[in-house]
This record gives sequence, structure tokens and C-alpha cells, in this order.
Amino acid sequence: MSEVYAARRERLRERCAASGSATALVSRPANVRYLAGAAPRGAVLLLGRGTDLMVCAGPLGAHPDDDRPDEALRIQTLPGAADGRGDPAVAAADLAVADGAESLAVEEHHLTVARHRAIRSVTPRLRLTDLGGAVEQLRVIKDEEEISCLRIGAEIADQALSELLESILVGRTERHLALELERRLVDHGADGPAFATSVGTGPNSGRRGHRPTDRRVEEGDFLSVCLGATYRGYRCEIGRTFVIGTSPADWQIELYDLVFAAQRAGREALIPGAEYRDVDRAARQVLDSAGYGHGLSPLTGHGVGLEIDEDPQLAPAAMGKLDTCVPVTVEPGVHLPGRGGVRIDDTLVVRPEADGGPELLTITTKELLAL
Amino acid sequence: MSEVYAARRERLRERCAASGSATALVSRPANVRYLAGAAPRGAVLLLGRGTDLMVCAGPLGAHPDDDRPDEALRIQTLPGAADGRGDPAVAAADLAVADGAESLAVEEHHLTVARHRAIRSVTPRLRLTDLGGAVEQLRVIKDEEEISCLRIGAEIADQALSELLESILVGRTERHLALELERRLVDHGADGPAFATSVGTGPNSGRRGHRPTDRRVEEGDFLSVCLGATYRGYRCEIGRTFVIGTSPADWQIELYDLVFAAQRAGREALIPGAEYRDVDRAARQVLDSAGYGHGLSPLTGHGVGLEIDEDPQLAPAAMGKLDTCVPVTVEPGVHLPGRGGVRIDDTLVVRPEADGGPELLTITTKELLAL
Repeated sequence: MSEVYAARRERLRERCAASGSATALVSRPANVRYLAGAAPRGAVLLLGRGTDLMVCAGPLGAHPDDDRPDEALRIQTLPGAADGRGDPAVAAADLAVADGAESLAVEEHHLTVARHRAIRSVTPRLRLTDLGGAVEQLRVIKDEEEISCLRIGAEIADQALSELLESILVGRTERHLALELERRLVDHGADGPAFATSVGTGPNSGRRGHRPTDRRVEEGDFLSVCLGATYRGYRCEIGRTFVIGTSPADWQIELYDLVFAAQRAGREALIPGAEYRDVDRAARQVLDSAGYGHGLSPLTGHGVGLEIDEDPQLAPAAMGKLDTCVPVTVEPGVHLPGRGGVRIDDTLVVRPEADGGPELLTITTKELLAL
Repeated sequence: MSEVYAARRERLRERCAASGSATALVSRPANVRYLAGAAPRGAVLLLGRGTDLMVCAGPLGAHPDDDRPDEALRIQTLPGAADGRGDPAVAAADLAVADGAESLAVEEHHLTVARHRAIRSVTPRLRLTDLGGAVEQLRVIKDEEEISCLRIGAEIADQALSELLESILVGRTERHLALELERRLVDHGADGPAFATSVGTGPNSGRRGHRPTDRRVEEGDFLSVCLGATYRGYRCEIGRTFVIGTSPADWQIELYDLVFAAQRAGREALIPGAEYRDVDRAARQVLDSAGYGHGLSPLTGHGVGLEIDEDPQLAPAAMGKLDTCVPVTVEPGVHLPGRGGVRIDDTLVVRPEADGGPELLTITTKELLAL
């Protein structure tokens, strides 16, 4: 794996060189992990002309289960830094100067004003520039190793969900169902949940990011569930909506079919070269033309990877085009205040048509199941 | 409750006025919650000369379970801001200028360089100053309402732990025990766990912040557990170490007694007016003089409240003195690489001697239980 991280750092180094800064300081944890294989708490990465260096706030965990950074990296540990004395970012800037750097590109969207000021005061002659989202941009297109982690995570989430569906649901609370799903994710080998599991019943169903409450599942409810597994750091997402009881009401069937059609339209729009906003529009216009345009979520999907909400955003104003090997969610939904709603959410990888089109990672059925 | 939040905002306003800035922008979520009663995702608080205003990234949840901000606040919602267009902090600065503000104190330890720059570019004539940790300082001393939330949280954690101890432990993994504890916290009314529950067995026992693994509990192990409940936003912490099996080894009894003595010394040093570092030293020197000075955690305890790790820090270099009504943890521990160790952790509230001294919130026994 070491070569993978070295190659990623090399690509970043090329970008930095192209924009005039030979040295970069990466502080955002997911970016550190992407470039170094691990992101110990508080650690930053200094990419200089010569050696790459990780500066850690404290000693690396001696435990075999702890993620270890790439062995090709030089590691510097700040003595006594864990009690707040000594910021790895400041120490890294200091080392950059000692190494002859005249400018340093930092992640201005992650560093706080106070830390930035601390760097300036310790290294007043160092010119600080903005690395911007350079690492986030590198992270958008995944390699097959990364996709394989997402695929395993999706299998775990599918399995946790299918087991839940085999159990009795009526009478159980949203909170309990969410906790049970999270336990099953871990049972099946996830590092943990990819985000707070959302379970919504009855009037709460179909709300994006609904925080589980003590409401119990009742006959006739819609039940919507959104969960994901983290596997080796990679986070996927699946969302499904079910009906409780033997016979869904007409409005439930109609609403389900509509959201299903919108989600299918979004999935089918996942073609290499498609504009992000065209994918969003494909799904959104189905809901819009049925009169549900008001109150829709501002996005139809988003990238996933080391974070659950990455670039790209599939939204009306998003700029950019899909590439092959970009994993995204497609997750339209409709929520009717007081009644509930439907949300269907898959994680897919953009693939060329010649390879069979988008690869669906979350394969749980999207038929309307009556449980 | 509304008066409580208004009074807190008034105290902050007085501090700002004293330091020359009539208007403050609060962005750190725990600080927003402290002053407004709720912190919707991305929301910031603008404290001006006249009205207090919350600027939200999107509409407030219509759900009855969502926390609602103080009704005395004016609420401004940014239309369409949820897809990334429009930063509430920038909008708030703009409103401050419209309201006649000439300077604005911001939380430089929370705002990123990029957001700070966005504020400057939208409001170039506004003088930006640093609010520093003013709100965090207000948060150190708790009122009885806050302490009561911590007390309930501690009761919940005690209960979750006592139920776990009644079950069979041998053969179960650290991960499962941690998940079970978290489920029980929620069962007993917690909003959720206060932090990632830590369960360490055998060689993993006694490590601060140990991330649960698939290691199973074995006869003869030390088992250390650290958990906490969040109740109405307030987070407490309890840590205990047990032995598995009927007869602890001599080294286990000795190590336990030592850590127990250190923890008691720390607790007994919790007197109003005591220096933070003297509390740390009281616990630390017990371990130090027994030859375990090397490799100790850099702190012996810390404040708790809306965040699990607040001011003060009980550490060798910490500056400041304890006040009455400050809740802190006392959590010394020793970990012997390859063998495991002991960690004992309580949440207590500093109280005057006349009121009976420190109030212990986490009341689970600290006898060495053999399970």
C-alpha cells in the first residue's frame, strides 16, 4: 500500500509546484489519512521538496489495531504536546523553514484563524498561501482499492438491513431500531457506522437526516431507514422505505412509485461526463412535475469516501462533470408534514457504459416491501 | 429557561463592551447552544447592541423533538443556504454592518481562515477582533440546572454500567460490550453516548481512550470501561476497572490500590480555590512515587459540560484555580504495555467544604470487583 500513498503525495506535490508553492501543510484529518494511510489525532502532514513528514501531537498508539501511517513517512512526535502545548501545524511550519522553505500552502478552509496566526508568529518570514481544496479534488476519483472498501461497506450495510427486516418491527422505537442496526454493522465487520443511523416512522418517515426518537413503529406506518458502514475508513450509505402491515394505502403506493421513479432517473443519469446538476435535475424534475418541488432537499446526492459527504454535490447549482470511478449517492425523497414520506438512497460508482454503466453497491431491493 | 439564556448573553455582552467590541459573532456550536438553548447545524449567533439574532443555514426542523432555540431570539434563515451557498457567519456580519456595527468580535479559535476572509471581503469596513474563549470561560462555572443535567446523565451511566456487570462477560468482545453499554445509555433516557465508549480487556485495559477491538474478555483479565451519557446536551464521564475471574493476581491488586489512591488524592484536592495543577499533582505524585511517572497521561482530569472535554484542564502546566460549581473528571490511570492496567474516572462538582466538599456524580463503587 505504501506506493499508493507515495503516489498520492507525488500528485499533490505536482499540483503545489504548478501553483508556485513547493511545500504544503495538510491538516484536515481525512486529507491526512488519504495521503498518509492514517490520521492520528491532531497529526498534520508536511510535504516538502525532500522527505514527507508527519507531525503528531503525541506518541502513536502502540496497539496493533491502531491505524499506522505509511512507513515511508518520517514521523515527528511533539513531546508533551498532548496537553495543549505545541500545535503540530506550528511545529511543521517551523520545520519547513528549517528545511529552507520560503512559502507554505496551508488548508485555509480547515485551519482556524488562531492557528494560522500562531504559524505566522512562529515563522514570520514564511509566505503562507492557500492550498484550497487540492487534496479534496484528488480524492474525488477513487482507485479500485478504495472502491473495494466501499463495496465491502455496502455489503455490510445491506446485510445489517436485511437482518433487521426479518425481525418484528411493530412496537419498537426508532432509537432501538437505529441502535440495533449499528450493532449489526459492527457485528459484520464494519469499523463503525458511517454516520448517525436514521430511522423514521409514520410522520417522521422520509425526512433526510431524521434523528431517531422514541416513537414506536405502528401498523400502517411508512418506515424509512438510512444507514452506512465504515470499512477501512471508507463510508457508504443506503436508504430504504418500507410499509408496516399487509396493505399499503393508495397514497403510500403512489408516493413510493414517484420517489422510486425519481431515484431511477437519477441513477440512470450517472454517466461519465454528465454535469452534476443534470443528474440532480433528472431526479428532481420527476418530483417537481408531480407537484412536490417545494421543500425538497437541496441536493439529490453527493460523493462518498473517507468522509460521508464529499465532493461532488449533486445539486441544482453544482458545477462540474462526473468522472469514471466516482462513487456518489442518489437519494431523492419526499416528506409530507404530518404524514411522513419516502426516501430511497443508493451508493453507486460511475462507470462507462461499455463496462455496464453505474455500479450499484447497495443491492437491497427497492420494491415496496410490506413488513 | 428563556431568562437563563438572556442572562448568559447579557454577561457576554458586558464582557465584549468591556473589551471594546459592542457586537459579537458566536460560531462554535457548543457556545451557540449555551447562549441560545440550541445550535441548529451551521447556525451562528449575533449579539448586537439591540436584538440578539440567530442566523441559520436552513429552516429549523419542524419536528417536536428538535431542540428549539430560545424564543426571545430573532431567527434569520438563509434561503437556499443548505447547499453551500451563503455562510451564516458572513450573513451575520453583513447584518451587523446594516445594524451600524463598526467592529465585530469573532471566535478566531473556531472560524477558519477561509470563512474569516469571506467575512472580510463582504464587510471590508467592519473591524474584526477576537472574541477569544470568552464564551468558554462563561461556561466553566455551571448553574444548578446544568449540574442537574450532569447528575441525571451520571445516574444513567451508572445504571448502564451496573446492568452490564450483571451479565456474563467472558467471551464477549470489547466492541460488543461498548455497543451494549451505548444501547443501555439510550434505553435509560440519554440523548446518546457522551463520547465513544471505551472498553479495554487484558493488555488493552487501562489505556485512555482505547478504541474497542475484537479482543474477547478472558479469565484473569483486567477489564476497563469508560462511558458517559449526554443528557439535555450535558456530558458526563465514568471509568472503572474490574478483574475477570475469582482471584485477582497480586500485581493486579497492587496496581489497582495504587491507582485508587491516586484517584482519591485527586478527588480530595478538589477544593474551591485550589490550583488546577495542584489537583493534578496530588494524583500524579502518588503514581510518580511508585515509579509509574513515565508514560502517564498528560492530564489527570478536565471540565465537562456541553462538551466532554472543557476547561479547566487538570494538568501540570495548567494555570488557574477551581471555583465552586465547576464539574470536572478525576481520572488517573496506569497502563503497562503488554500487560494492561487500571483507570478510575469520576465526574465530580467542586463544592465548598461547608456543603460537604466535592459532589460525586458517578457513584458506582470503586472497590475492585472480581466478576
